[in-house]
Amino acid sequence: MSGIVVQDVERAPMHVVDGLAACGVATVHEAQGRTGLLASYMRPIYAGARIAGSAVTISAAPGDNWMIHVAIEQLQAGDLLLLAPTSPCEDGYFGDLLATSAQARGCRGLVIDAGVRDVRDLTEMQFPVWSKAVFAQGTVKNTLGSVNVPVVCAGALVQPGDVIVADDDGVCVVLRADAEAVLEAARAREANEGEKRAKLASGILGLDMYKMRERLAAERLKYV
Amino acid sequence: MSGIVVQDVERAPMHVVDGLAACGVATVHEAQGRTGLLASYMRPIYAGARIAGSAVTISAAPGDNWMIHVAIEQLQAGDLLLLAPTSPCEDGYFGDLLATSAQARGCRGLVIDAGVRDVRDLTEMQFPVWSKAVFAQGTVKNTLGSVNVPVVCAGALVQPGDVIVADDDGVCVVLRADAEAVLEAARAREANEGEKRAKLASGILGLDMYKMRERLAAERLKYV
Amino acid sequence: MSGIVVQDVERAPMHVVDGLAACGVATVHEAQGRTGLLASYMRPIYAGARIAGSAVTISAAPGDNWMIHVAIEQLQAGDLLLLAPTSPCEDGYFGDLLATSAQARGCRGLVIDAGVRDVRDLTEMQFPVWSKAVFAQGTVKNTLGSVNVPVVCAGALVQPGDVIVADDDGVCVVLRADAEAVLEAARAREANEGEKRAKLASGILGLDMYKMRERLAAERLKYV
Amino acid sequence: MSGIVVQDVERAPMHVVDGLAACGVATVHEAQGRTGLLASYMRPIYAGARIAGSAVTISAAPGDNWMIHVAIEQLQAGDLLLLAPTSPCEDGYFGDLLATSAQARGCRGLVIDAGVRDVRDLTEMQFPVWSKAVFAQGTVKNTLGSVNVPVVCAGALVQPGDVIVADDDGVCVVLRADAEAVLEAARAREANEGEKRAKLASGILGLDMYKMRERLAAERLKYV
Amino acid sequence: MSGIVVQDVERAPMHVVDGLAACGVATVHEAQGRTGLLASYMRPIYAGARIAGSAVTISAAPGDNWMIHVAIEQLQAGDLLLLAPTSPCEDGYFGDLLATSAQARGCRGLVIDAGVRDVRDLTEMQFPVWSKAVFAQGTVKNTLGSVNVPVVCAGALVQPGDVIVADDDGVCVVLRADAEAVLEAARAREANEGEKRAKLASGILGLDMYKMRERLAAERLKYV
Amino acid sequence: MSGIVVQDVERAPMHVVDGLAACGVATVHEAQGRTGLLASYMRPIYAGARIAGSAVTISAAPGDNWMIHVAIEQLQAGDLLLLAPTSPCEDGYFGDLLATSAQARGCRGLVIDAGVRDVRDLTEMQFPVWSKAVFAQGTVKNTLGSVNVPVVCAGALVQPGDVIVADDDGVCVVLRADAEAVLEAARAREANEGEKRAKLASGILGLDMYKMRERLAAERLKYV
Repeated sequence: MSGIVVQDVERAPMHVVDGLAACGVATVHEAQGRTGLLASYMRPIYAGARIAGSAVTISAAPGDNWMIHVAIEQLQAGDLLLLAPTSPCEDGYFGDLLATSAQARGCRGLVIDAGVRDVRDLTEMQFPVWSKAVFAQGTVKNTLGSVNVPVVCAGALVQPGDVIVADDDGVCVVLRADAEAVLEAARAREANEGEKRAKLASGILGLDMYKMRERLAAERLKYV
Repeated sequence: MSGIVVQDVERAPMHVVDGLAACGVATVHEAQGRTGLLASYMRPIYAGARIAGSAVTISAAPGDNWMIHVAIEQLQAGDLLLLAPTSPCEDGYFGDLLATSAQARGCRGLVIDAGVRDVRDLTEMQFPVWSKAVFAQGTVKNTLGSVNVPVVCAGALVQPGDVIVADDDGVCVVLRADAEAVLEAARAREANEGEKRAKLASGILGLDMYKMRERLAAERLKYV
Repeated sequence: MSGIVVQDVERAPMHVVDGLAACGVATVHEAQGRTGLLASYMRPIYAGARIAGSAVTISAAPGDNWMIHVAIEQLQAGDLLLLAPTSPCEDGYFGDLLATSAQARGCRGLVIDAGVRDVRDLTEMQFPVWSKAVFAQGTVKNTLGSVNVPVVCAGALVQPGDVIVADDDGVCVVLRADAEAVLEAARAREANEGEKRAKLASGILGLDMYKMRERLAAERLKYV
Repeated sequence: MSGIVVQDVERAPMHVVDGLAACGVATVHEAQGRTGLLASYMRPIYAGARIAGSAVTISAAPGDNWMIHVAIEQLQAGDLLLLAPTSPCEDGYFGDLLATSAQARGCRGLVIDAGVRDVRDLTEMQFPVWSKAVFAQGTVKNTLGSVNVPVVCAGALVQPGDVIVADDDGVCVVLRADAEAVLEAARAREANEGEKRAKLASGILGLDMYKMRERLAAERLKYV
Repeated sequence: MSGIVVQDVERAPMHVVDGLAACGVATVHEAQGRTGLLASYMRPIYAGARIAGSAVTISAAPGDNWMIHVAIEQLQAGDLLLLAPTSPCEDGYFGDLLATSAQARGCRGLVIDAGVRDVRDLTEMQFPVWSKAVFAQGTVKNTLGSVNVPVVCAGALVQPGDVIVADDDGVCVVLRADAEAVLEAARAREANEGEKRAKLASGILGLDMYKMRERLAAERLKYV
Repeated sequence: MSGIVVQDVERAPMHVVDGLAACGVATVHEAQGRTGLLASYMRPIYAGARIAGSAVTISAAPGDNWMIHVAIEQLQAGDLLLLAPTSPCEDGYFGDLLATSAQARGCRGLVIDAGVRDVRDLTEMQFPVWSKAVFAQGTVKNTLGSVNVPVVCAGALVQPGDVIVADDDGVCVVLRADAEAVLEAARAREANEGEKRAKLASGILGLDMYKMRERLAAERLKYV
């Protein structure tokens, strides 16, 4: 089942990918019906990055980063690497050399359900990473995995070519085929939020703005 | 037992609350006999905030943030929201819209034994949050909880109106009735620490300053 | 077995210690055959510190920081405190007063498999700490431990006088006797990396630079 | 705040305590409005025990079991020891000698948010324990704590004299003052469950028995 | 995206399902190329059960077990319920009443990435459950989820109708379409293992039986 | 540093090893000054085993069990396998085939800071295992490790030939050179405990038996 590299992967249009990045994780997640989040333990190595990219997926053995080299050849500008180990692992699969190579090919970042190292260098390079751990533990290159196959990464199913959105709130996956519709829904949501924000800032209560008082009374909320 | 909103909650005087903020978590915790800390997993979403506020407490079902809207109406200037789910949950109960609303009513921050989202916006707004997780997962508004009832939050009992102190070291609760006395003890402690700090900075050892050598010898510490 | 302070501990030469600091954790770990890392839960209280020092080790009872005072007397300029509790604990053994005292004696930082507090002050003092937790919980001074005995700290064996390297990637221990040889290997590695980095930045693939294609084919990696 | 032993603690009537034991944790928890559960990490050392007892509470320093000796003197027949450390700890505070002593005084078991040891002996003695860990780590007797003061144990507030119910599902606390009413509600619930169980066993669906179909349709559940 | 019940789900032939149960988790996992395992935190509530069944999948809101009632109607003899919450939760979604209902419809067990309760009753009924937690916490019936949609459960993708194998080693999913081929491979593996077991029991070393010595020497393993 | 097999390892005398087994983990741990315990997450796969053996240590890459085959050749009757991965891993390194082989050579059990599988078979064979996880995940045979070198296993330093004691309370390591003295101390402790147990069973309080009342009063314990 492993030992496969899929080369011909469809991506979402770049303007859609970039549009999703601008919306951010929370909005995109809501816009697609509250689905697609990776587990909350996936944290950025530095604050402030907000990106989206098309997933080049990697399935790798624990403690073995061989397939990352293979995956880098598959990168196109606007892509993002996403690695899921075949069993739980926090080794440092990825550091500044691999980031240099990936960045040279237009890669926007890494999402890895394992460890990363050289985080000071990666921060200086502004190569963003969302990972389960920061850990310097080196890896070997002995066991085949696969590139651009479906993987479950931090609890979410990711297909190659899916759009990955990542920011300080975490990571969200959008099905490639849904990306355009999700972007539209996300933008609608954002437009709608601006107005709400202004009302709330002026002191209007959510209880009134969302007309919750009646339903709360129906449920018998008691004020004492 | 749930479905209750207590409206008439006594607060500590504002100058006491502000005084406790200035002392910080570690000092306040010591000043009240090493009690009142919430669990260490409660971490700030950004570094450098040091606040105190009177607790408006929220008991909420897992994945349901309805009661936050109810709680915001109960906020007074100088308050702080504190939410404990009725069972372990890391969903993102709170984001920038709720923060806008809370801030408009004078709320100083949020302490939540669950998740928070929109942390980039919250950081820009300088609305500090101490939480168990950062997670974009949306919540529903279907199940009643309670506002301003006693809750256990991250291992500590909190009564409505208790003073919550929070900074980079975590979160500490002070009983409202004890707040004034704790402030006095905390200030005494601080005054005392300044002198100690100067001595230690000059190279005097704690062993001598605290006169520990005799007791260590009595316990038979061996130098080899 | 406890209640011992070893006073006569050999250190590695200062230029070796400083050389290892400049190489950083990931490189040093690789240079000594991928050994010596402490567990990934050992995180710095602020980003950007990169230090090395000779370990003054502390074995302490849970929730008891008495031995830190004893250890501070044993510090020499260029040393680093390293504390392992005798059973799992996350109490705040160490804060700004102890840091002031340690810094006055030339201590470069603290590595502690437990908690630390006053992190805002420690950050201002630029006294770096790698810890398992940030927790304000105070400790007592009732039970003897030992200073400068071998300890297992966050999964790694540390002997007094071993060199500890710490940066944003975590913490690594180098045997005192191996320090010079490890430094040489680390520098060789660094020199070698510069050239690789330039090639990768120019777009040359790791697959080609490391001549991996043949071995991947031998293992029957399939491109589809 | 610590260093106190409260001697005069009111208990619930024994027949109420025993009645609650017979109902078990899940039923009692439901009967009091889904409150009172300790965290799910509190597991029994052997399967099959189902007990209830009046809580003799212990607040103890991490790694210090001195107060258990003090607490045992306060035990009455039908009581149960409940220990909460003042900070997280998994040391083995309790073993077969303490169990022998407690059992001699009519103690029914131990609930401890920390570690226990000698579990083979405890199993043979049929002295049930619910704990956070099984760990042989020994403890000291150096620091005072308190007996029969309110404590937060594994996330639940427990007052001395409250009724503790424990079985294979975990641990639940019932306020002493509510115990009689909770027992009544629990028994009503049980009576009611017998009938439901028979219907469900005969193949009648919960969808029909609880008349859920209409509400599901109203919420627009779609069958495809 | 939620609020859907898929009624027409294809199952694998019963003799294939039963054959996989007889092989057990470890063998089946190996037979399909070391894939399909759920996370190791999924543990059985009692030892000794070894089952397989066709998955009726449930996607449910945290703390809301409404959809289990809906799912039970979809059960056929030889099925198994598998529940994944939409965000992490350890509430007790399932107890003896639901088990009675499910068992009446031929259900063989439950796999739930959340909590379960009434484990004593479930053990007596011999209704096996693999869960993340044992926890009595009650749930509500307020929010729609879905039945028989693809879910990620404890890190593994499960489609409705896939075969779930579960025993003391944990839980493994087999794609429905692959079930027959996997069974064949598993049986071949078993046959093969019998012979190996006999050799190893007689004292022949794996080093010799698997002819490893040469390759170890090639890798330069040193005997000292 | 890795790729080494040490063949000539000294063991403690068998009667000493067996004597330590009879004393059990808690007593042995106390007898050697409360040292030597492995972390509490090391749990037995079945209850009731109490063994001791001389450690044949294994250092292995994550997800690679090749070295276990090498280690089995080094086993002598009365030995025990002890495996520490070079980075955190919970894969199932060991199952019934390896157990058959090890048992054929007189091995008494396995201590592994990782996963184990085939636990039903291992239970039937009465081959006891203490592990961090039960997990069926298969491993590869691609990367060299070492046999009979010092390792840190679950937080404890283990040298080849050290005596490992394991029972329901967990696992404890005894330095080979100290084994005889520790056995003597453990037996003295046991003799002493018999008398204490009888007194406590008769109702005498620890407060009196250990003469604690005076010291408690000196520390100002208050009875109220």
